[in-house]
Amino acid sequence: MNTIGKILTLTTFGESHGPAMGGVLDGMPAGVKIDLEALQRFVDRRRTGQTTGSSSRDEKDRVEVLSGIWQGETLGTPIGFVVRNTDARSDDYKELASVYRPNHADFTWQAKYGIRDPRGGGRASARETVARVVAGGIAIQALATLGITIEASIDRMGHQCRDAKSCVSVVSATESCVSTEELERVIAEGDTLGGIVSCTVKGVSAGLGEPVFGKLHAQLAAAMMSIPSVHGFEYGDGFEMATKRGSEVMDVFEKRPEGSIGTVTNHSGGIQGGISNGEDIVMRIAFKPVPTLMRPIDTVDHDGNAVTLQPRGRHDVCVVPRALPIVEAMAALVILDAYLLKKTNRL
Amino acid sequence: MNTIGKILTLTTFGESHGPAMGGVLDGMPAGVKIDLEALQRFVDRRRTGQTTGSSSRDEKDRVEVLSGIWQGETLGTPIGFVVRNTDARSDDYKELASVYRPNHADFTWQAKYGIRDPRGGGRASARETVARVVAGGIAIQALATLGITIEASIDRMGHQCRDAKSCVSVVSATESCVSTEELERVIAEGDTLGGIVSCTVKGVSAGLGEPVFGKLHAQLAAAMMSIPSVHGFEYGDGFEMATKRGSEVMDVFEKRPEGSIGTVTNHSGGIQGGISNGEDIVMRIAFKPVPTLMRPIDTVDHDGNAVTLQPRGRHDVCVVPRALPIVEAMAALVILDAYLLKKTNRL
Amino acid sequence: MNTIGKILTLTTFGESHGPAMGGVLDGMPAGVKIDLEALQRFVDRRRTGQTTGSSSRDEKDRVEVLSGIWQGETLGTPIGFVVRNTDARSDDYKELASVYRPNHADFTWQAKYGIRDPRGGGRASARETVARVVAGGIAIQALATLGITIEASIDRMGHQCRDAKSCVSVVSATESCVSTEELERVIAEGDTLGGIVSCTVKGVSAGLGEPVFGKLHAQLAAAMMSIPSVHGFEYGDGFEMATKRGSEVMDVFEKRPEGSIGTVTNHSGGIQGGISNGEDIVMRIAFKPVPTLMRPIDTVDHDGNAVTLQPRGRHDVCVVPRALPIVEAMAALVILDAYLLKKTNRL
Amino acid sequence: MNTIGKILTLTTFGESHGPAMGGVLDGMPAGVKIDLEALQRFVDRRRTGQTTGSSSRDEKDRVEVLSGIWQGETLGTPIGFVVRNTDARSDDYKELASVYRPNHADFTWQAKYGIRDPRGGGRASARETVARVVAGGIAIQALATLGITIEASIDRMGHQCRDAKSCVSVVSATESCVSTEELERVIAEGDTLGGIVSCTVKGVSAGLGEPVFGKLHAQLAAAMMSIPSVHGFEYGDGFEMATKRGSEVMDVFEKRPEGSIGTVTNHSGGIQGGISNGEDIVMRIAFKPVPTLMRPIDTVDHDGNAVTLQPRGRHDVCVVPRALPIVEAMAALVILDAYLLKKTNRL
Repeated sequence: MNTIGKILTLTTFGESHGPAMGGVLDGMPAGVKIDLEALQRFVDRRRTGQTTGSSSRDEKDRVEVLSGIWQGETLGTPIGFVVRNTDARSDDYKELASVYRPNHADFTWQAKYGIRDPRGGGRASARETVARVVAGGIAIQALATLGITIEASIDRMGHQCRDAKSCVSVVSATESCVSTEELERVIAEGDTLGGIVSCTVKGVSAGLGEPVFGKLHAQLAAAMMSIPSVHGFEYGDGFEMATKRGSEVMDVFEKRPEGSIGTVTNHSGGIQGGISNGEDIVMRIAFKPVPTLMRPIDTVDHDGNAVTLQPRGRHDVCVVPRALPIVEAMAALVILDAYLLKKTNRL
Repeated sequence: MNTIGKILTLTTFGESHGPAMGGVLDGMPAGVKIDLEALQRFVDRRRTGQTTGSSSRDEKDRVEVLSGIWQGETLGTPIGFVVRNTDARSDDYKELASVYRPNHADFTWQAKYGIRDPRGGGRASARETVARVVAGGIAIQALATLGITIEASIDRMGHQCRDAKSCVSVVSATESCVSTEELERVIAEGDTLGGIVSCTVKGVSAGLGEPVFGKLHAQLAAAMMSIPSVHGFEYGDGFEMATKRGSEVMDVFEKRPEGSIGTVTNHSGGIQGGISNGEDIVMRIAFKPVPTLMRPIDTVDHDGNAVTLQPRGRHDVCVVPRALPIVEAMAALVILDAYLLKKTNRL
Repeated sequence: MNTIGKILTLTTFGESHGPAMGGVLDGMPAGVKIDLEALQRFVDRRRTGQTTGSSSRDEKDRVEVLSGIWQGETLGTPIGFVVRNTDARSDDYKELASVYRPNHADFTWQAKYGIRDPRGGGRASARETVARVVAGGIAIQALATLGITIEASIDRMGHQCRDAKSCVSVVSATESCVSTEELERVIAEGDTLGGIVSCTVKGVSAGLGEPVFGKLHAQLAAAMMSIPSVHGFEYGDGFEMATKRGSEVMDVFEKRPEGSIGTVTNHSGGIQGGISNGEDIVMRIAFKPVPTLMRPIDTVDHDGNAVTLQPRGRHDVCVVPRALPIVEAMAALVILDAYLLKKTNRL
Repeated sequence: MNTIGKILTLTTFGESHGPAMGGVLDGMPAGVKIDLEALQRFVDRRRTGQTTGSSSRDEKDRVEVLSGIWQGETLGTPIGFVVRNTDARSDDYKELASVYRPNHADFTWQAKYGIRDPRGGGRASARETVARVVAGGIAIQALATLGITIEASIDRMGHQCRDAKSCVSVVSATESCVSTEELERVIAEGDTLGGIVSCTVKGVSAGLGEPVFGKLHAQLAAAMMSIPSVHGFEYGDGFEMATKRGSEVMDVFEKRPEGSIGTVTNHSGGIQGGISNGEDIVMRIAFKPVPTLMRPIDTVDHDGNAVTLQPRGRHDVCVVPRALPIVEAMAALVILDAYLLKKTNRL
């Protein structure tokens, strides 16, 4: 239930204000060189405090690898790792133990388990994603040796499309993202924004993905939809496909100069029949606005009594900038898993 | 790889022009009454030839249950079933053995396996979905005893929104769907249409879904995206969420007259933090246009040589009407699986 | 729950007196040549009526492959198959609907599901194994192309060791096994016998098996223990290992003439640390005596009332001769699965 | 591959001389009270240095729970934990990097992965089992609230049967086990011993276990066979069953004074048809002698050249005393998993 993947599996654990977040990445092939400093830099891209509007919770997010990597190489054994929680301020959450914040998981979690750790959202906190980024960062390094690269970018924040290119380059450099006027206004009003992330995977050869229930895009959808706040997923022309005629979205084949067969256009987003076709894999992921407003919020407690919550805690205004490495991480886990599974298609 | 589900699992098999399609539905609880005639009627909703523009391949789709149901009740044992292929015309596909049709799975399948059954698309044919409908139809009957109902409807076919209500009722009655002018024109031009299906699940109590990788909407996304031709999935306000402020989509809690806690609005689509909250579960699924046009198509063969394909075979103009029971079936499998898994949340 | 395997998975279904037994073998690599006549001959080895003391139920056990094999080759798609039940005499079991036979699964099945198909033991019947033999027979053909062979033989029937060699050759030839005096006496007294099957896998290269929970011998144990009536499993020197000193069971390495490294002895049974070492894999499986005696049996009904059962039905006196192809089938499924998984150990 | 279980899953990680061993226990129901001090005492039973002949490596084995338990109760979230490796002396293993010790996993591991951590056997070390004991100890506390208890005892060490009772009580008290003369002699000769552990589970109600591939005894066999050094598993009368007539091992039913149905004898070991029948579950597990002798050992290096290894490192003479909590832990994980799965047998 806290595991994703078939051959390459990631199991994560950790509550937002518990001692640590962590995970086990199992099924990683042996003999892959891993640069732990590059891994740390990748994980740092997800940290708070790097862009206007991001949470002021300052976690160092130091990755401690406990197993599976030795002398800079994977052993083929499970890679266990932890990231300590060091800047937890649980007092911010005391009053939340018996109150349900709207658009959060408080109510559903209580309904499911009959118990929950209210501190910082417990396991429902997006802090959970740090373990995904560690594991995905390792997968990205493995994919790089295969010539496969993954890049997520901001497609849209709030109402307005962003100049994705420039913003992303800044975010990638972990400098402060230039805030738009809209962003400033939203912050001033204690409000929040949603957004869309697009992600492209380059260098995937044809043949990855399982054609029925394990279609490559179905696996990608499950992985992306499992990221907190995601409300939609599409690949290739996505929802626009629904408004098109067949003749408008036909990816005609061509023989390329070097002899291989490819498609002239890529409406299919690099996947046909659930299997990669060698073109770029392209997808878009929609995030809802952050549910914690910096305004008083009317809600109810466990007994249904009306309660007004005062703004407290430290939160992002929009998750999209910090979501980029998370999206890349999830894509990497799915693609590497599919790559490994493909090895078993022939004797 | 051809299995979906955790406790309730469906494994399917079958090529379009092989002897039969079939599947095994395992993990179905014991003692559930199953009406096999009602099941057959549900499966019939997916059959061809019932609406203008649907394929003229006439499969009777008689469900033969081979195990797991005895004297009208489930035994708790796996439910094996087959649906024979009786109207296969494989000659239509002879020339396709060495040719790649655009926007089909021919090329990717060949790249993956090095071999494929070209007759009717082999296992890549949407005929594969008949097994899903059989299994999902059984799950729907089980869910009904729990007060859970599922209804899919046509949200859009091609450019224009449809009056979903009336159209669906007709489709449900398995009579011919009144074609719009657009549909007639598309057929005349040998072209095809995409569309969007919306689906609502009513009666689900709070607490279903696993909060990290197994979020209820992530499971639904994977299930829906695994249906042939699907290019996008969203739940609740979906992609529109990305353009909203947090204050615009807040599902405020209220205490209901009977004492339970619910939300005034349902932007979240019945799922919060990956767990059902007791409201209606609402989702939308985007289908690409049918890739087989009734026009000559330029493409390439295995060696990359240019080939022109003449229109042949029997195909739908738009899959959306026939997709309704498929969407319902997949939703049912996911919801019942989550229901069973929830039983293990407490000792 | 009715599925075994990780990459190569077998899911089976069927009740003894239902319409058919069957299964789905998924994950079989593409392009493997399958001889369906040889497969039928392998399945026939499990049939009744071929040796003294075997059940007189006469099932033809015709294998019908429904998918996944085309023009004599595997497609990489799931191989669905059925074997019809044609000689079921359900009347023999009418009185059993409310009675618990000792050492059978009647009582436990009722406790678990609250319902059961009493006809012929329902799904608890050893007839279930026919699906294993079909799937395993396919795996054996795939393994043969890799130079891997599997042979099970009778190690012991009842108190006395058998001359395994001669008996097995006869059984393999599907002729009647010459009954020992003991066997005749046991039959005359309406009693039954247990026995031990040994199984050797030759030609497995070093490196198969997952070293912690998925040790190759742990997978083999699970597979063999899942065969009806099995009560014990050991590999290499097995239980005798427990009585030995370390110095007595040391498999010393040697460099072989052709340059490879092997062991001089094979106390380890071809597996060290859960991973194959290239030597023969050797194991032994203990079967309990058939629980159905041809004598009146005192037992109880659902309410605990005393009941005497008269002997009825058609049963084996000892399962061991018919178990040989079942053991081989299970071994083949495990070994081929491990072979496929090994492909993912390196990028 | 490093995960066991269906609903309740344990994933472990760690190399013997890496920073830590650890694991994630997922699927544990919410609201179960866990006594962490009692858990530590259970883990301490596995530690070295408590009995004559056990390794002198002195690991404190302090369990650090990182998630999933809050204020003494399980949250329903994954329980992550680590146990630091503090007394590793890797220098002892330097010469082993290019040498294969007989009856160890050095050779097979190298064949599988092409790389291995030779320090202390890396992940192939029995130190891996500490994570099993932590997780199993938690499961044992959950089972206790259901009235289910598990006790493993020494059945045999070396050639002679031990007075299991007295020895176990001493071991349980974590005092030094009184060594037999045989044990002293074996130590003096630098040799080692195998042994047999028996294990009894009391208080399991009827209905646990999945009847085909997931038979309760098949799951127990897989779990026990996955413990390092185990070469055999049997339940009930086990291998002796093979030498008995059906009439000798019939577990006749009786109606008990309180009205329930039970069996007069328990040759079946508490499991019939793969499902628990309410009687005690009884099994025996055979361990091979420890493969590391305190004598010079002739072996080969990677290139097949003859090498003589001098005795080094710290090792047990017989693993059986320390194996008791490991066996109990594995039994607990299987039984609790089966208990949870049974909840899904009815709607």
